[in-house]
Formats: sequence, structure tokens, C-alpha cells
Amino acid sequence: MGLWEQYLKENESRFLNELIEFLRIPSISALSEYSQDVRDAGRWVADRLEAAGLENVQILETGGHPAVYADWLNAPGMPTVMIYGHFDVQPVDPLNLWSHPPFEPVVKDERIYARGASDNKGNMLIPIIAAEALLQSEGGLPVNVKFFFEGQEEIGSPQMPEAIPRHKALLACDVIISADGGQWEEDQPALLIGLRGICAIQIDVQATKADVHSGSYGGAFLNPIHALVQIIDSMRSADGKILVEGFYDDVRPLSKAERSQMEKIPFDEMSFKNQLGVSELFGEPGYTTYERLWTRPTLDVNGIWGGFQGEGLKTVIPREAHAKISCRLVADQDPEKITQLLIAHVNSHAPRQVKVSANAISSRAKPYLIPADHPGNEAARVVLKTLYGKEPYYARLGGTIPVCSMLLDTLGAYTVNFAFGLKDENIHAPDEFFRLSSFRLGQKAYVMLLGELSGRKF
Amino acid sequence: MGLWEQYLKENESRFLNELIEFLRIPSISALSEYSQDVRDAGRWVADRLEAAGLENVQILETGGHPAVYADWLNAPGMPTVMIYGHFDVQPVDPLNLWSHPPFEPVVKDERIYARGASDNKGNMLIPIIAAEALLQSEGGLPVNVKFFFEGQEEIGSPQMPEAIPRHKALLACDVIISADGGQWEEDQPALLIGLRGICAIQIDVQATKADVHSGSYGGAFLNPIHALVQIIDSMRSADGKILVEGFYDDVRPLSKAERSQMEKIPFDEMSFKNQLGVSELFGEPGYTTYERLWTRPTLDVNGIWGGFQGEGLKTVIPREAHAKISCRLVADQDPEKITQLLIAHVNSHAPRQVKVSANAISSRAKPYLIPADHPGNEAARVVLKTLYGKEPYYARLGGTIPVCSMLLDTLGAYTVNFAFGLKDENIHAPDEFFRLSSFRLGQKAYVMLLGELSGRKF
Repeated sequence: MGLWEQYLKENESRFLNELIEFLRIPSISALSEYSQDVRDAGRWVADRLEAAGLENVQILETGGHPAVYADWLNAPGMPTVMIYGHFDVQPVDPLNLWSHPPFEPVVKDERIYARGASDNKGNMLIPIIAAEALLQSEGGLPVNVKFFFEGQEEIGSPQMPEAIPRHKALLACDVIISADGGQWEEDQPALLIGLRGICAIQIDVQATKADVHSGSYGGAFLNPIHALVQIIDSMRSADGKILVEGFYDDVRPLSKAERSQMEKIPFDEMSFKNQLGVSELFGEPGYTTYERLWTRPTLDVNGIWGGFQGEGLKTVIPREAHAKISCRLVADQDPEKITQLLIAHVNSHAPRQVKVSANAISSRAKPYLIPADHPGNEAARVVLKTLYGKEPYYARLGGTIPVCSMLLDTLGAYTVNFAFGLKDENIHAPDEFFRLSSFRLGQKAYVMLLGELSGRKF
Repeated sequence: MGLWEQYLKENESRFLNELIEFLRIPSISALSEYSQDVRDAGRWVADRLEAAGLENVQILETGGHPAVYADWLNAPGMPTVMIYGHFDVQPVDPLNLWSHPPFEPVVKDERIYARGASDNKGNMLIPIIAAEALLQSEGGLPVNVKFFFEGQEEIGSPQMPEAIPRHKALLACDVIISADGGQWEEDQPALLIGLRGICAIQIDVQATKADVHSGSYGGAFLNPIHALVQIIDSMRSADGKILVEGFYDDVRPLSKAERSQMEKIPFDEMSFKNQLGVSELFGEPGYTTYERLWTRPTLDVNGIWGGFQGEGLKTVIPREAHAKISCRLVADQDPEKITQLLIAHVNSHAPRQVKVSANAISSRAKPYLIPADHPGNEAARVVLKTLYGKEPYYARLGGTIPVCSMLLDTLGAYTVNFAFGLKDENIHAPDEFFRLSSFRLGQKAYVMLLGELSGRKF
């Protein structure tokens, strides 16, 4: 057993107590009455970094919830690794569904229950502990390390697009390791190599200056709901292809290697259907479900409304009708460009008898795709294989983590997901928990990862 | 001047006072707290019929608001004419927009202002006064007359479909004259020869068992809003034709004569567009606006909803989506049959990956079309021509008056619209009024109409 491993073992109960202390801070970023708590959590993280032996610890003001920075840059000639995570948490509603108060952590059956236990406090504390173990037991780190933890991830990181470029020099690095995420299953590791981006528009159709009676006027002008339905229906074919002109132009085709990586991941169609509650799946022809979810763009109506929604009938033709449409994007689609294509499609398919406007909704993020054989991924793969005894899956996410593409754009560095949450840990829900086994495994994994990274070229 | 004309003149101020008294009763059928007032208005009508010299006066119980019946059947060999109207009124909200309290009638500039002045108390009192004038001055009527006034027209006559068949023998007649309606313009009479019918369905689409995240699941199953939009868009072509299989099968084609009758009615497109607030009209190809409004069936979405309707974006794919669709129908379309065609169309166009159900909404009424040369119309035409010095237009209504087809079905008698309201009289709105000139003209017109009807064969 190495010195660092012994250190981790000897201090195990202190680390757990520290996690409990961290979890007691109700750092809910979405609710302004908890702003000071978010700040307190940042302060707690800064102090913890200091105690671990990190240098240059500082609170970075953003205009909103703060971020925390620290580094250890005493490995000349070695890569610089930035570790990312967040210390803010989701709200706790509905409170009555929690078995214990969400900010009074409870340890039970080798699990710790509290809001933020898995997402992301438990996971983000791991690399701090790993760094401490190396610094305190071995006297140094095998690579240069920067820590960057934000306090606004759960509200979509509104100030990050300004703060990250402002601190570009401070945050410069060769690779980013994100402690925000998880593994595939308890006994199956995974590398996350792709995330979809997003863009969205709202379509507003106005026909008349007021609602009118469907008997008195019906048949003599264009019903705005008909116009809206016609526009939306023109955006995709009945078999699931998106018909917006130019939509697929920049989509990077799937390579044979990528497809075969995905084929290795077992897909239980029955359980997926049961999870959704559908009798049949549906999607773009020619792709598997994982391919559709992870590697193909979508166009989804998220909301539609117009006219009477009550019981029975109101013989009205409404003045206006509306819809919100969003697209999940994949490499190399650009959210700005796709937004413009969507707007152009709506305008070119808008019947001239009604007023139609299509406008971007501000939620926007680029897709993210890290090469599967990126040196950061390779280092992670070696560690995961050693610890789990299995090759990791090369998985992707259908959703969006805007910070990955933002960091890539600003710092020119890819993000490797290296975290230990599991799917059943009720993140964003009541009774969130984190496995103590994951907490311990993660610490070991991070120490090993820093070692693996030290020999690599970026 | 005939005796009856002198009688009308001599009693003019009494008639006006009676109208004021009648208008003071707040007989709002829609609001249960006014139920007794509706009943009081019925009692007032019954007493007034009695005073006029009518016989066999009775209140007909319906289970809801009552109806009133009276007759004078002493013209053997002559046709029996049933006069229809209603003594209930619309609610008065918004009260603050009334210049005077709605149930404290005010006479000003030869107009009487009060809720119900035009719709329908002023108009329905006219034939009672006409009958009184003949009975009191001439000792009899030129035809057999039945009066049938209801107290629930403004709430859609819910008990009439049961009450009318129950009183079939009592109400038997050769022709019905409706005092509920109006003329085209102050100096232009019109005969109303057609009304559209209506039927409606609701479409409910369910995809998943709960709302799901558009990132995690988007692309792998059919979004219920897409399915709904696809179904609705399949129901009509972009140029305004309805594509529901069999929809037009029973539509009686417009004859040359009918088209030329409608062509005689001036249509001011600019003012119609301004009224709606649209820059361009739109409708079924090959028809004028009046033809589209009066003689062609429609399919209109009256409401659509599903998913997120708030500000910004919620990255949700909703569990379900809904729409309400109604059709205005024309002769000889049957609401039952069209409802079934709509449901069949939805079912045959429903993507199998979602659960789709289409169900009839109870609002349903047959279209109504009286032959332009019906003897009742002919009698009305002669009177109107005499009084206005102009041929009446043969007009129709795009809306629905269910009682006309109901009376035709049950009693086998057509309804001739013979009333004197005008479009600007704010019916169903604040400051409703009726012209005293119309009140006087109507009395004369009704006396003449009874005379004209006496010579006709039905």
C-alpha cells in the first residue's frame, strides 16, 4: 500500500465528517434567499482547498454566485490539469417526500443521504481529498493542478460565459477533468465522450385583432392554429426526419468505429420502453436508439398553445397561437446557425394571410465531442480498467452540459468526465444519496488519474 | 288607416311602458341566482298574452327555465302559424361599461336602452302587440296563431330537445315565425334562409407516462405534440380544403339561383378585413366570402394545448397534447355522421407509436336551410317589400340557431325569420338598445304578415 493510500485510509472518517459538514450548507443557487449559503459553501471549499495544501486559493466574483479557484503548479514540464465541479445544489421541493431533512445528512447502509450528496458535493470533494493525500503523504503532485469550482451550475451558469474568458490566463490548462457526473453502473465504468447542444425558438402566429366567433367568421380567414400546425408539420417528415433546409449539413457522420463503440453498450429496449411508458419507440430511420439519443439532432415541440383549453366547446377562433421548439444539436452543428435555419424555415413556410414571427429563445449551447482517444480519455480509461477490471463504455449524453463546450471554446482544452455518481442516486429529487464506496473509490481513482496524466502529451 | 293601425297608434305609449316593465325583469338564464326572475318574466309574458286576448295561456315546465304557450285557433281552414321568441337575456358583465343600469330602461333619442331591449324582449313583444291590435280592433286574426316563448335560449336551450317533442301536438303548426333576429340594415330588409350546423370533437394524444427531459429522451420516441400536429395538418390542405374522407359528400351544391341571390348582397371586403384585423382573407378556393361563410362547411381548431406555455424554455417533452376541433355544417350534412367521419379520420391518421383518442363534444346542431320560395318566406317578402320599398336580400348566417332545425325535425315546419333588430344594437354587450322606430315598424309588419300568411298553402 502506497503512502497516499494509507493516508486515505487513516483519514477516512475525517473525510466523511467533512462531507457531512459540507452537505449541511443549503447552497441552493436557484433561490435568492440562499445566496449567502451558496457563498458560505464557496468559502468552505476555499478553506478546504487551503487545508489540503493547495496554493493561490481565491474566491472569484462573477456578479452572481461566486466561483472558487486554487492551484498547485510545482511540476515543471508536466501537464496542467484543471479539475471542475460545483458546490451549489438543486432546490429540495417537494420537501415532504424526503425521509430526512435534506440538509441534515444521514449515513445509513453505507450511503449518505442529503441534497447535493451525489450532485455534486460528494463528487467534487473527492479530487480535493486526493490532492491532499498526495501532498501530505508524498509531498507533491505528479502534474500541475488547478481547481475551478462554480456556484451556479444548477441554474445554468449564467455568469460563466463572462467569467471564464475574464480569467482565461488563470484557468489556462491542458485538459479539464470534470468531477460532475458519474459512472455507467456500479460495476461498469464509462467515459463520456459526447453531449448534445441546444437551441430554441418560439413561433407566434397572429391572425385577427381579437378572438372571433367561429360561426360568424369561420371559413373566411386563416385560423392561426391551422397556420401554426401547418408550419410545424412542415419541419419534419412523418418518419422522423427533420426537413428544415440545411439542418443536417454540418452533422459529422458517425464513423464505423464510433458505431461499434456504441454497439458494445447493452440496450434493454423493453426496460427503456417501460421507463417511458410507450409501447413502441420511434425515431430517425437508420439509427439505433443510442445513436438517435446521443449522435443525432432532434427537433421537438416543447409547448403549443392557442384558443380554448377548458371543458366542452367554445366556438372561438383565437386571435393567436404559439409554440416553443427546441433542437438538440450534435457535432458540428452551430446553435446560432441552426437557430437562423429554423427561423428561415418558419418564415418561408408561413402562410402570408397571418402574421408569423419566429424568435430565438436565449437557451443555447454548442454540442460537445471529445475524441475517444484523447490523452485525457486514455488516462481515465487506464485507471477505470484497473479499478473496475473492465474496459469502460464510450458513452454520450443526449442532454447538454454547456460548460464543456464553453471551456473548450475559451481555454482550448477538452473536458474528461471523471466522476462516480450512479443513476439511482436521486439527483435533483428527494432522498438524494451518494455511496460511501464510490466516495472512497473516487479518491483512489483521482490519485491514480493524476499519475496517469503526468506521462501524457496534450 | 285601418282599425288595427289606429289601435297601434292610440296605444303607442302604453306599449312602450309595457316594454319598459318587461325589461325591468332581470331574466338572466345563465345565472342561477336569477332563476326566479326568468320565471317572473315568463309569468309576465303569460299575463301579457292573456291581456292581448290570446287563449289557452299556459306555463310549460321543462325541468329548467319554463316556456310560455298561448294560442288563438278560431280561423278554421286557415294555416296555423307558431310565433317563436325568448324572454331570457344574456348576463350584463362588464357592468362598468354600461352608461345606465342594464335593468333600468332609459329612452333617449328614440332608442330604448336595457339588457334584452333588442335580444329579444323588444322583438318578441311585437307579435303579441300585433295580435292584440287585430283581436281588439278587428275581433279576430286572419290565421290560427300559437305563441311559443322559451326562457333558456341564451344558454343553448338545454331542455328544449326534450320539451318540444313532449308538446308536439300542442305545438303542431304549418309554419313558424321567429321574432328572434333582425334585418340587414335600417333601410334594407333581408330574409334569413340558411344557418350552419355544428359538431365537434376533442383529440387527446398521450405518449409517455410522464413528462420527460428532451435531452435525455428526445429523438427516441414520438413527441405527442408532433403526432397531434401531424393529425390536424392531415385534415385540411394548405389551400383551405377539408381532407376528411367523405366530409363534403352530403353538401348540397349551390344552385345558380342561390349564387345569384347572394351576389346581390354588397360585400365590402375592406371593411370586413378591418373588422377582423387581417390583411388578407382566406378560404376554400372557388367561393366568395359570403359563400364560404354561409354555404360551405368549415373545420376549425378552437383550441390546442400541450407542454410548456411559460416564458423562456423548458426542455420538456410533454406526456400529452390536446386539441378541440369543430365543424360548421351546411345542408345536408348530418352532425352525427360528420362526427363519425372526423373520429375515423383521426384514428386512421394516428401514428401507432402514441395513444390517440378522438371523442365527440356534445355541442351539436343540424344545419338549417329553408327553400327561398317557401310560402312563409314569400309572405314575409311581400310585407318587407311593401314596408321598405325594396326586395329583401336572401341572406344566411354562418352561425347556428339550433331551435330552427329542431323545430323542423320535430314539427315538420320551417321557421321564417321575421324580426327587426339591427347589427349595431349591442346585443350580448353593454348598452344594448332597440330602436323605437323598429318597435313600431315591427308591429305593423306582423299584422301585415298574418294577413299575407292567411292566403297561402303550406
